[in-house]
Amino acid sequence: ARDLHHSCQWGSGIRWGNDPTETGMQRLALSDEDREVRDWFVQTMKNLKCQITVDEMGNIFAVKPGRRTDVPATFIGSHLDTQPTGGRYDGILGVLAGVEALKRMDELGLETEGGVGVVNWTNEEGARFPMSMVSSGVWAECIPLSKAHDLKEVPTVASLPSAASAPETMKAALERIGYLGDVPCSYKSIPMAAHFELHIEQGPHLISAGQRVGVVTAVQAYRWFRLEITGRDTHTGTTAFEHRADALYAFAQMMVRAREVAAAKGCLASVGIIEAAPGSVNTVPGRVSFSLDIRGPETALVAEVEDELRSAFDEIAAAEGAGIGKPCQVKWTLDFDSPAIKFHEDCIDCVQESALAVVADAPVADTKALVRPIMSGAGHDSVFASKRVPTSMIFVPCRDGVSHHPEEFCSEDDCATGASVILQAVVRYDRR
Amino acid sequence: ARDLHHSCQWGSGIRWGNDPTETGMQRLALSDEDREVRDWFVQTMKNLKCQITVDEMGNIFAVKPGRRTDVPATFIGSHLDTQPTGGRYDGILGVLAGVEALKRMDELGLETEGGVGVVNWTNEEGARFPMSMVSSGVWAECIPLSKAHDLKEVPTVASLPSAASAPETMKAALERIGYLGDVPCSYKSIPMAAHFELHIEQGPHLISAGQRVGVVTAVQAYRWFRLEITGRDTHTGTTAFEHRADALYAFAQMMVRAREVAAAKGCLASVGIIEAAPGSVNTVPGRVSFSLDIRGPETALVAEVEDELRSAFDEIAAAEGAGIGKPCQVKWTLDFDSPAIKFHEDCIDCVQESALAVVADAPVADTKALVRPIMSGAGHDSVFASKRVPTSMIFVPCRDGVSHHPEEFCSEDDCATGASVILQAVVRYDRR
Ligand SMILES: NC(=O)NCCC(=O)O
Ligand SMILES: NC(=O)NCCC(=O)O
Repeated sequence: ARDLHHSCQWGSGIRWGNDPTETGMQRLALSDEDREVRDWFVQTMKNLKCQITVDEMGNIFAVKPGRRTDVPATFIGSHLDTQPTGGRYDGILGVLAGVEALKRMDELGLETEGGVGVVNWTNEEGARFPMSMVSSGVWAECIPLSKAHDLKEVPTVASLPSAASAPETMKAALERIGYLGDVPCSYKSIPMAAHFELHIEQGPHLISAGQRVGVVTAVQAYRWFRLEITGRDTHTGTTAFEHRADALYAFAQMMVRAREVAAAKGCLASVGIIEAAPGSVNTVPGRVSFSLDIRGPETALVAEVEDELRSAFDEIAAAEGAGIGKPCQVKWTLDFDSPAIKFHEDCIDCVQESALAVVADAPVADTKALVRPIMSGAGHDSVFASKRVPTSMIFVPCRDGVSHHPEEFCSEDDCATGASVILQAVVRYDRR
Repeated sequence: ARDLHHSCQWGSGIRWGNDPTETGMQRLALSDEDREVRDWFVQTMKNLKCQITVDEMGNIFAVKPGRRTDVPATFIGSHLDTQPTGGRYDGILGVLAGVEALKRMDELGLETEGGVGVVNWTNEEGARFPMSMVSSGVWAECIPLSKAHDLKEVPTVASLPSAASAPETMKAALERIGYLGDVPCSYKSIPMAAHFELHIEQGPHLISAGQRVGVVTAVQAYRWFRLEITGRDTHTGTTAFEHRADALYAFAQMMVRAREVAAAKGCLASVGIIEAAPGSVNTVPGRVSFSLDIRGPETALVAEVEDELRSAFDEIAAAEGAGIGKPCQVKWTLDFDSPAIKFHEDCIDCVQESALAVVADAPVADTKALVRPIMSGAGHDSVFASKRVPTSMIFVPCRDGVSHHPEEFCSEDDCATGASVILQAVVRYDRR
């Protein structure tokens, strides 16, 4: 448990307290810090006598063989990359729990029928290369390899080796850090019996209800877009509002509208990246580009929000009513689409039974109430894994439900609970 | 006239047509392109037997002596720097008209009592170093030299030598291009008898009324601010709207409000620069900074808009009513303040008489109607010059009233008219 809570040393981000764990993480996918933690992961797994495979997306698979060699291993997987101002648990906890599980099995001399593996998926966050879960997506053959390799990094405040030059592609970044493997990235070359993932909840439900474990049954839908607004550069001091085609003013109205429309349907709509050109105090920006992330509990709802926003944005750009002056153009590009999914009953059962067993001796009257089924608001590599193999996830609480923030926090106890549940779930699944 | 229209070759920007003049300009202050045009200017003026002085702000003064050596020269001044996506006339026309005037005087053997000078003021645009007219401001002793030297360049899309490293200060940039002079930048060390400036209108009044010359009597007030909004980074997919402190959503509401408030008072409010951090599709931005440019015909009106926006932005940040979720903080910094000014009667008269003389043989019934008094919406170095010496300006039409855009355009005829008017105005002033 100490290891789970503490061993996360490459790419420390913004420090927010004095304790060794009171720091954020800044370990963007395929950065030098990511290379360092990968090297550590590979070495650690070799010490645990695992076989290591690195595929064309830089996914690292470490397998401890079981008694039988004719069946694929059951995997524990998650990711070691973080947001630019990320925390110490999102993804990291899931990989470290895998390492911990293999250590514990070693100590206990626990043998399994099939092998047990740990996988570190590349660029799960989608923070550097703007497609989340992209490498599990390629493995599931849901995303073409070439599309993933050609992805360009986003402009970010984080200092990357490539920041000065042209944006780096994912393939170039894989080569640069030495993790462009030669094994095809596919569930066909690297098969799995099942995929389990431990993660912090990233929402407030468990923590505010005082619950210990979430048995994840589903993941909400989301779509990522890149939008470009084209207006006209002009002077801020001499151009009356009605003569402007102000791309940034159009953006401002769009963002306000996006929240209204999403909220009315119980969905979310968020802008994380914005750039306005040419970027001068006294020039009205003629070009704006921004990211739009729409989410909702059902795929159809996300599509409805998208449809309404397409009309609303066209109206705003055409300057009808709201009066931005002269018309702007708005162009949408779909970067990523992740429909809502449901996890596999067998895996959900294994997690549920394991969770109840782990919390069984908690000092409360009704220990069953400490465990609840839950839907994930965030995407995870388990989404793509679930398209090819039985999959489910385990959530543990995080403070205030906050993630993607340096102060993201999961207590030592909660880390330990999660790790125990995932180890049991794997063993239970192996015995079935 | 051909020279005025054509000779502008360093730092060509975005091309929009096939004609040699159908291109924008990208010559940010103290860039390599700025150095090249400065070298050309110095050499050209030396060939015209001018004395050259470069001051501590890199302002270049070129003086052709008159009959008397005991009186200061009358100056024609403007600037050779441009916006990142600027045009070929804003500022440039004013300096080239000065060069042309001295050439014409040479050809005609025209002698003056006092000397006649041409000045190229540094960083008038405020596009790279976010304080417009800063170097005439230092010359007028309205801006402290150290404040100007310490100004840092803004983050811009334009590629500057310093783009990769830390933002360059104005002093460092002056040193780098070899234009950090040793003469004190002050009206006391470099006195003037008067300052005249020719400029494109940058607004639609002359062009839409079919008028040829604007006699500029006044300049509107403006203030530039930098604002910072602090919220909290958090996950876009798992954080309900009411749990967010979304700095970018707060910005969007502020920008929409700024236009409402400014419009209601006949003023302008514009955002030219925006940055949101950390800059990831699936992280709600916790930090936003942006520029705000408020303008109005009277200094008091600009102050009223500022006051209303300070309250409105506080309200938005506090999430009262509009509901951005958790509160953000907003911080204002005043970067630049230019109160409304009126030009000098004597100079205005010289320009008026010269303009009427120049348009006198236009083929229309009422040539007087081709000339009109006008207020400037944009700031100019003449604003600061006017604080120390008699000053006024001449406007000529520009197509669609558009400037700070590559397609900014002033016809060869209009360039020539303006140059004739300024030459006459200088001679008239000299004779008084
Ligand atoms: N868990 C997580 O933050 N994944 C990143 C993909 C997403 O934005 O949901
Ligand atoms: N003329 C001009 O564009 N000057 C720049 C200062 C301003 O923004 O008004």
